[in-house]
Amino acid sequence: MTPGKTGNTGRPSTARSVEEHCAHVERLLDPLSSLPPVDVSPEAALGRVTAADISSPVDLPLFRNSQMDGYAVDAASLDTIPVTLPTRGVVAAGPGTPPPHEPGTAVRIMTGAVIPDGADAVVPVEDTVVDGDYVTISRRRRTGEYVRERGTDVTKGTLLLPAGTVLTPRHIALLAAVGSQTVSVRALPRVAVVTTGTELVPAGRSLRPGEIYDSNGTALSVSATANGGNVVSVIHSDDDSATFRAILTRAAAIADVIFTSGGVSMGDFEVVKETLAPLGGEFVHVGMQPGGPQGTAVFDGVPVLNFPGNPVSTLVSFEVFARPVLRRAAGLPSLEQPRLALATDVTSVAGKRQFLRARTTGETVEPVAGPGSHLVAAMAWSNVLIDIPADVEFLAAGELVEVWPL
Amino acid sequence: MTPGKTGNTGRPSTARSVEEHCAHVERLLDPLSSLPPVDVSPEAALGRVTAADISSPVDLPLFRNSQMDGYAVDAASLDTIPVTLPTRGVVAAGPGTPPPHEPGTAVRIMTGAVIPDGADAVVPVEDTVVDGDYVTISRRRRTGEYVRERGTDVTKGTLLLPAGTVLTPRHIALLAAVGSQTVSVRALPRVAVVTTGTELVPAGRSLRPGEIYDSNGTALSVSATANGGNVVSVIHSDDDSATFRAILTRAAAIADVIFTSGGVSMGDFEVVKETLAPLGGEFVHVGMQPGGPQGTAVFDGVPVLNFPGNPVSTLVSFEVFARPVLRRAAGLPSLEQPRLALATDVTSVAGKRQFLRARTTGETVEPVAGPGSHLVAAMAWSNVLIDIPADVEFLAAGELVEVWPL
Repeated sequence: MTPGKTGNTGRPSTARSVEEHCAHVERLLDPLSSLPPVDVSPEAALGRVTAADISSPVDLPLFRNSQMDGYAVDAASLDTIPVTLPTRGVVAAGPGTPPPHEPGTAVRIMTGAVIPDGADAVVPVEDTVVDGDYVTISRRRRTGEYVRERGTDVTKGTLLLPAGTVLTPRHIALLAAVGSQTVSVRALPRVAVVTTGTELVPAGRSLRPGEIYDSNGTALSVSATANGGNVVSVIHSDDDSATFRAILTRAAAIADVIFTSGGVSMGDFEVVKETLAPLGGEFVHVGMQPGGPQGTAVFDGVPVLNFPGNPVSTLVSFEVFARPVLRRAAGLPSLEQPRLALATDVTSVAGKRQFLRARTTGETVEPVAGPGSHLVAAMAWSNVLIDIPADVEFLAAGELVEVWPL
Repeated sequence: MTPGKTGNTGRPSTARSVEEHCAHVERLLDPLSSLPPVDVSPEAALGRVTAADISSPVDLPLFRNSQMDGYAVDAASLDTIPVTLPTRGVVAAGPGTPPPHEPGTAVRIMTGAVIPDGADAVVPVEDTVVDGDYVTISRRRRTGEYVRERGTDVTKGTLLLPAGTVLTPRHIALLAAVGSQTVSVRALPRVAVVTTGTELVPAGRSLRPGEIYDSNGTALSVSATANGGNVVSVIHSDDDSATFRAILTRAAAIADVIFTSGGVSMGDFEVVKETLAPLGGEFVHVGMQPGGPQGTAVFDGVPVLNFPGNPVSTLVSFEVFARPVLRRAAGLPSLEQPRLALATDVTSVAGKRQFLRARTTGETVEPVAGPGSHLVAAMAWSNVLIDIPADVEFLAAGELVEVWPL
């Protein structure tokens, strides 16, 4: 291969392996992992990740209470049954301290109500017959039966949830039960997306020849959202460097990381590369398919990942470089990458790590359509990427490959 | 057992199996499954479920375009290589139709740009050397190489996504690529939550003796949200029937389904039962632990599920009765209920289907703490419910049990 002589069109001098570029991106995006935690209400905490260990501020149950609707008694009164005891009022669930229990009497009590001091068992209402101010009890109960002792679920200071817990309804129910008004969770990195390319038009506009819909903004936006990003801005820039720079300035003011698409390869009008390379941006060729042309930069102190513009290249670049870092920053667990058996033979290009769009039903995995980075439907119909190492040119059906869930 | 003589305290005459009550709830909530679909933008469609098949309104690619930055040629010109061809202008990606290709010339072309009529291959820039108005090409290319033909990904009318697709970023990228402004998705049923009990106070208030924090509102709210519900209201009612009824009236005006907690069992102050039974509500005892007392009603035309008030009973009731129906209404797939081996012996109560809080690491499953319906922390620390049939009293370690994921 002979490099072209034209300005920006030559293959970039820097070539990197996927592993090297991943490590570079991880260093660049490292500040995302130390964003200060935020306080949210339990109601708003679904799917968020605890920033620190959470200990209980109270005992649970908060006080000794009845497990049943029935009668609070002292178990010693039930030595002989049936037994008829005089009744002494009613304790409902709700505020207030009931008077102390008189041995040999029974107090009507509701589920969750405070057990009077001196009572030590509850007789369920099913085992009683009331007659005026007396109750006849037909079944013996041991000391402690149907009594929920204070602190038998958790005691004050007990670790409720360790740092790093992805909050589900059952966790949030516990936080509410101990009276948490707020919970400290990992911040969601603020993400700005900038798409480039004069051929791109928004949905709803009629297309002229040569124009296509701008899908990368939407694709990167929802991909970031699905992986712990808080998308604060999605903007399209034309291929004018001043415009692009003005958009980056606005994005950097409100975001922790910026993703761009397009303008990084070997055409004559690579606005991203032309704008950011003079500011220290690095534009490299990564040994992968799709997604070879990649860039990174820091703009106004904010890290920027520059993905290529082909829709499939953009999505695969996000999956390989951005998703792991974004999930880690948000505290989300990394996704499992199981090894599955190929359903068919697969060929690959030497020197390039391939991420083939593929479908699996859990047992085997089969590529969907070809490697073309324009095959958006084929990507939509895939549910995994097959990761084929750079030094592999052929894999036979039945061989195990690592797959990345989509 | 002898029923008590007091007003509302007797065991309800109606007793139901879990299966019978499930079927009853399904019929009651059936209208949720036929809510009219809604149109949302692709950006807002993450996790939503397509309401109908979606076919492509366009071909993809939309037009014949270049896969590389390079030179568009007619492959016949490359019969002998190296070959030097005169260059004829530049075609960038963007609006416009380039002039027809002159055989024996080369046109500089960018990735994604329209291929001039008559050209049938693209030579990547890496295989070229430019000298003034001429380009020397060092490698032969076949007809069609690096040319993306119109419609090779999808053709107009192709089924893109079937009805019932849970939309992920790759699906949404495809919708954006075909220019969708909106996507028709299943409605999220509007859910109102009403908690009852004078013992309940909101987080942040200091507790008097006998009071506890109102956790059921939060628990039911986030549980509904996590399973396709659109929570429109979460309100606490005291045990006054007029207040409760006024709250239900407001909730019914804005919700498709109402969940209540508390006030359904055998105490003296069962506001839910006392209010809704005279309006046709059914209050029954379901053969299950926890969650025995259950109610259903229709209020102002809106179905109401009345769960018991113990926090664990409330959550388990939601999991057993509400979650499957809510997910189906939202179009979400039902959750798998795998069979796992017990790590320890387990005993159960004859005649009651048990839902034991338990932890699994994927291989075996082990109960967490006891069956008490007040053990909120034990529920938080569980990740499944073990489903023990009503007719089983003992299961030995190693036996297989069905588990419900939490």
